Amino acid sequence: MKRVSFDKIRTGGFWKYREDLNREVSIPSVYDRFKETGRIDAVKCLWKEGDENKPHIFWDSDVAKWIESAAYSIALNPDEELEKKIDAIVDDIEKNQTPDGYFNSYYLTVEPGKRFTVRDNHELYCAGHLIEAAIAYYNATGKDRLLKIMMKYVDLIIRIFVEEDSALFSTPGHEEIELALIKLFDCTGDKKYLDLCAHFINTRGTSKKDKEIPSWADQMYYQSDMPVRKFKKARGHSVRAGYLYCGMADLAARTGDTDLLDACERLFDNISKTQMYITGGVGSTAKGEAFAEEYLLPNDLAYSETCASIALAMFARRMSEITPKAKYDDVAELAMYNCVLSGVSLDGKSFFYVNPLEINIRRHDRNERFYDIHHNLLTQRIEVFGCSCCPPNLTRFIASIGDYLYTYDDSTVYVHHYMESEAEFDGVKITQQTRYPNHGEVRITVSGMKGRNLAVRIPGWTDFVSLSGEEIKAGENGYVTLPVTDENQVFDFWFNMDAKLVCANPEVEDDAGKVCVCRGPLVYCAESTLNDGIDLSKVSIESDLKAGLEFDEKMQTYKIILKAYEDMPSDALYRDYDPKAVRGIKLTMLPYFAFANNGESDMKIWMRTKHIGEDETVG
Amino acid sequence: MKRVSFDKIRTGGFWKYREDLNREVSIPSVYDRFKETGRIDAVKCLWKEGDENKPHIFWDSDVAKWIESAAYSIALNPDEELEKKIDAIVDDIEKNQTPDGYFNSYYLTVEPGKRFTVRDNHELYCAGHLIEAAIAYYNATGKDRLLKIMMKYVDLIIRIFVEEDSALFSTPGHEEIELALIKLFDCTGDKKYLDLCAHFINTRGTSKKDKEIPSWADQMYYQSDMPVRKFKKARGHSVRAGYLYCGMADLAARTGDTDLLDACERLFDNISKTQMYITGGVGSTAKGEAFAEEYLLPNDLAYSETCASIALAMFARRMSEITPKAKYDDVAELAMYNCVLSGVSLDGKSFFYVNPLEINIRRHDRNERFYDIHHNLLTQRIEVFGCSCCPPNLTRFIASIGDYLYTYDDSTVYVHHYMESEAEFDGVKITQQTRYPNHGEVRITVSGMKGRNLAVRIPGWTDFVSLSGEEIKAGENGYVTLPVTDENQVFDFWFNMDAKLVCANPEVEDDAGKVCVCRGPLVYCAESTLNDGIDLSKVSIESDLKAGLEFDEKMQTYKIILKAYEDMPSDALYRDYDPKAVRGIKLTMLPYFAFANNGESDMKIWMRTKHIGEDETVG
Repeated sequence: MKRVSFDKIRTGGFWKYREDLNREVSIPSVYDRFKETGRIDAVKCLWKEGDENKPHIFWDSDVAKWIESAAYSIALNPDEELEKKIDAIVDDIEKNQTPDGYFNSYYLTVEPGKRFTVRDNHELYCAGHLIEAAIAYYNATGKDRLLKIMMKYVDLIIRIFVEEDSALFSTPGHEEIELALIKLFDCTGDKKYLDLCAHFINTRGTSKKDKEIPSWADQMYYQSDMPVRKFKKARGHSVRAGYLYCGMADLAARTGDTDLLDACERLFDNISKTQMYITGGVGSTAKGEAFAEEYLLPNDLAYSETCASIALAMFARRMSEITPKAKYDDVAELAMYNCVLSGVSLDGKSFFYVNPLEINIRRHDRNERFYDIHHNLLTQRIEVFGCSCCPPNLTRFIASIGDYLYTYDDSTVYVHHYMESEAEFDGVKITQQTRYPNHGEVRITVSGMKGRNLAVRIPGWTDFVSLSGEEIKAGENGYVTLPVTDENQVFDFWFNMDAKLVCANPEVEDDAGKVCVCRGPLVYCAESTLNDGIDLSKVSIESDLKAGLEFDEKMQTYKIILKAYEDMPSDALYRDYDPKAVRGIKLTMLPYFAFANNGESDMKIWMRTKHIGEDETVG
Repeated sequence: MKRVSFDKIRTGGFWKYREDLNREVSIPSVYDRFKETGRIDAVKCLWKEGDENKPHIFWDSDVAKWIESAAYSIALNPDEELEKKIDAIVDDIEKNQTPDGYFNSYYLTVEPGKRFTVRDNHELYCAGHLIEAAIAYYNATGKDRLLKIMMKYVDLIIRIFVEEDSALFSTPGHEEIELALIKLFDCTGDKKYLDLCAHFINTRGTSKKDKEIPSWADQMYYQSDMPVRKFKKARGHSVRAGYLYCGMADLAARTGDTDLLDACERLFDNISKTQMYITGGVGSTAKGEAFAEEYLLPNDLAYSETCASIALAMFARRMSEITPKAKYDDVAELAMYNCVLSGVSLDGKSFFYVNPLEINIRRHDRNERFYDIHHNLLTQRIEVFGCSCCPPNLTRFIASIGDYLYTYDDSTVYVHHYMESEAEFDGVKITQQTRYPNHGEVRITVSGMKGRNLAVRIPGWTDFVSLSGEEIKAGENGYVTLPVTDENQVFDFWFNMDAKLVCANPEVEDDAGKVCVCRGPLVYCAESTLNDGIDLSKVSIESDLKAGLEFDEKMQTYKIILKAYEDMPSDALYRDYDPKAVRGIKLTMLPYFAFANNGESDMKIWMRTKHIGEDETVG
């Protein structure tokens, strides 16, 4: 199964708006912040003790992800100025690469002579991101300087980690290079990269050298508590885990390793059936930025890092490329439209690292003061973090969103996602005309596919789908497979996208008795600021949902206005229960991705329900 | 207004069972544990560095409260053996009282020469409890040896704290002696005790000397952040606060100080309208064992110390003695039947210090592991604590429960509470025939009251009261005032006591959307162990409450069996909301006071509701 690369696709509508904002605002803004904070210049390797902006162990990865973002942007919208910025960085990297191929701005300045001694210190992670950047830039421009630098560096890594086994650890502390090596293998066709990836993945959880870890961590944190093929549950640092699972899936796809693929499917199912927030967020605890346990999904204490949700979408995309199943696409879509997109502000400049599912400022304050419950509460996105991995991860994700759309083989083209778009690849042309995710009509026009099948994913969130007005049902894999009989053929789909109430599995104690308002792939939330400062803990939604829509230009989608109830104030601390002691209100909900764009506010996804219906005594 | 002392009252029924258990099991058991842990023998003042059982600063108060309990028991049930035990302790105290009157087993052994130097070290608190013990023992037996010891000690306190002002602090760090001094004034008629009480109360919050406090505390902790007459909100250590408020009310009652009484009423209203658990528990945070803030009443993190609830009942009783208002009695009753009684096990041997309103063992464990949320979770009562203030507080409370029943003046006898009982005082005889708190019929027979009024409290929890079958309504103060026209007269009351659902003020976020099952003064809870180990987070109660009753001998009251629903299991992590995706179950609830008598268990008071009613598709 091949993937149609994003650069073969021109989007419109919702995602075009996002891509433009990403290119015009986010990518330049991330560059500026990285320049100001010393990240960009760190690759000059001039830092000396006493200087400001001391390089950090992960700074190269930040710069690499920015290059990768910029390269994707250039692929669709050539930009000489942007290329100059990248070239300047490549100049510096080239200049400072050691004769044996090593490059890491931290170890070349802060701890010279200590390279490959500390597993947790992100060297292979940085190398991985630089490999991805190099390939992206090469693909976008044909410039192969950074690619060659990284190939030379990988040769060193092969020598140190495989041939000599001379590093003080055996596998990456922060996984990432595995999936990058697969990209390098795909790009060059050189099997040594596939072999190195396999070496890292197969050695993981088996190496004595890797037993040395910091006191605050454990082997589970590093996904090193067992050989990867034995994994049953997603555990440990959620971003590291997600990247590793991507590498495992990539390797399995290229080697036909069914044990490895089975492990990937188990992990995917474990995450998506027991450990994923309804926003597509994962990693529910800040302690180790990690997966916690099955069904432990607190809303206010959620960690749910943007990078982890991106990693989940990447993992889901890979799984669906190997075996097309709508369950994978559903998860990728959930992450894409919710936890990932919430990572960036509507103005494109600011970012969330943690994406909480509930903000209750007073409670947070009271928890700290009275119960020593501490968690970082960031109520507004900011432009750069000390550990600023998420912003350039988001920019590269949005800049290459088209990667998620199509896969194909000789017999079938799979439509995994819906967005206004035109794609051309291998003699095939596919056009999607749709206002998705705002409306459920999707007209798909295909050319050059006569005799092949079009397999169209039926989103898990819809209860009714029609083709040319006739109801259709998904097959076992979640797709409708349609033979293409004409050179040019039009398919008119309609996915019912009525706003609806969703509940969580009863095992999720934090959501017990609560509902979430969803419409299509979008999860909605209520903000107090958009509702006259109402105390959201007093609000319940009419369970016989009556929802109105209100388009918002900045969000490029709808707010939902619905009937709700506010508990009536009372003088008594306790009183006889009266379900009608409420007043009817109109509650404005907004897509989760757009929260925290209206000033500091309480926010809530999971709401109580109440059924009063048309009773005139209320409100 | 005079109070009818408990020793003028013989109870039957529910409280007789409790009194007997208290006398036969609890009082001896507390003595044995105090003997084993060195508390009883600490008053011998023989401890030397290196010895085991080093006296603690508050041990004298433990012993004193035990003496007080035993004295109350003796007053109703003479017991020579018990007297011998008390006399032996008095011997030791007498022997070790210093010539100038001082007695404190900690300072006489562990820190000799340091007396009255550290405000927080409980010397005046211990003295206060010893005064209470002395009076109780004197009243029960006429033996005045301990009383004289304490009068001599108080003379020293007057010299040190008033005449010389030579202590390193001005007012007690742990209040208690204030109310004890009022008892001593009432007992002896000597105004110097009233004056000392007034001195402590009036000096509080005004003294420069008292500014010296430990680093972990603040003035609010000690109720010393302002002069007491300015208090608007209950704050700081909840037991200290409660005892102080008792002393303030006592002083106001005897001096006619309306400013002080107004402060007491403000504090009472603040507690009962904004800071009290539905169990009558107060002090919602373990941090400083303190009142937190208005409407902050978390259930699992509740501190809700037994002593604090006893102090609240004591305060409420005093307020109702000054100005009879049913709101005071309602609070005293709530505490009495719920948070206070939950402090002791059904077998009378073991005690709770903290009385949580929810136990969720898995969540507690997960909170610790994944969110660094730590709170002591004691799922079973234990026989003695390191700080074992609650057990002897409970035993003295139960042994003198009759104190709560009646107050009177020349014109009116007030019936504050209901219990099967006979009382004789000042030529009046009042008999209550009732199965209260299990049934709502109360026959009150009065003799010797012709020409006076009988004022009968209408409990706040009832919605219908009849007298001889005719509905009656409470007056503004919450009582029905009935003229007594015959020498012997019978009043047949009936309080509707149907089980019902109660909700909290919407400001109490932790109880939002939840209900509590109550019957009469009893608050009910669900335990997983009594319900086949069900996960209580999955349970909702049918809001159209259908409750059956099942008598339990050990509890001397009813369990409630009601219709409830358990959320249906699901394979999906998220699914379309369906209010009927539940199965009907019978849920057994038990009075809160009886929880944790059935092995380690999850427990919950505040439950979700659901209305499905008679739908046959459920269950």
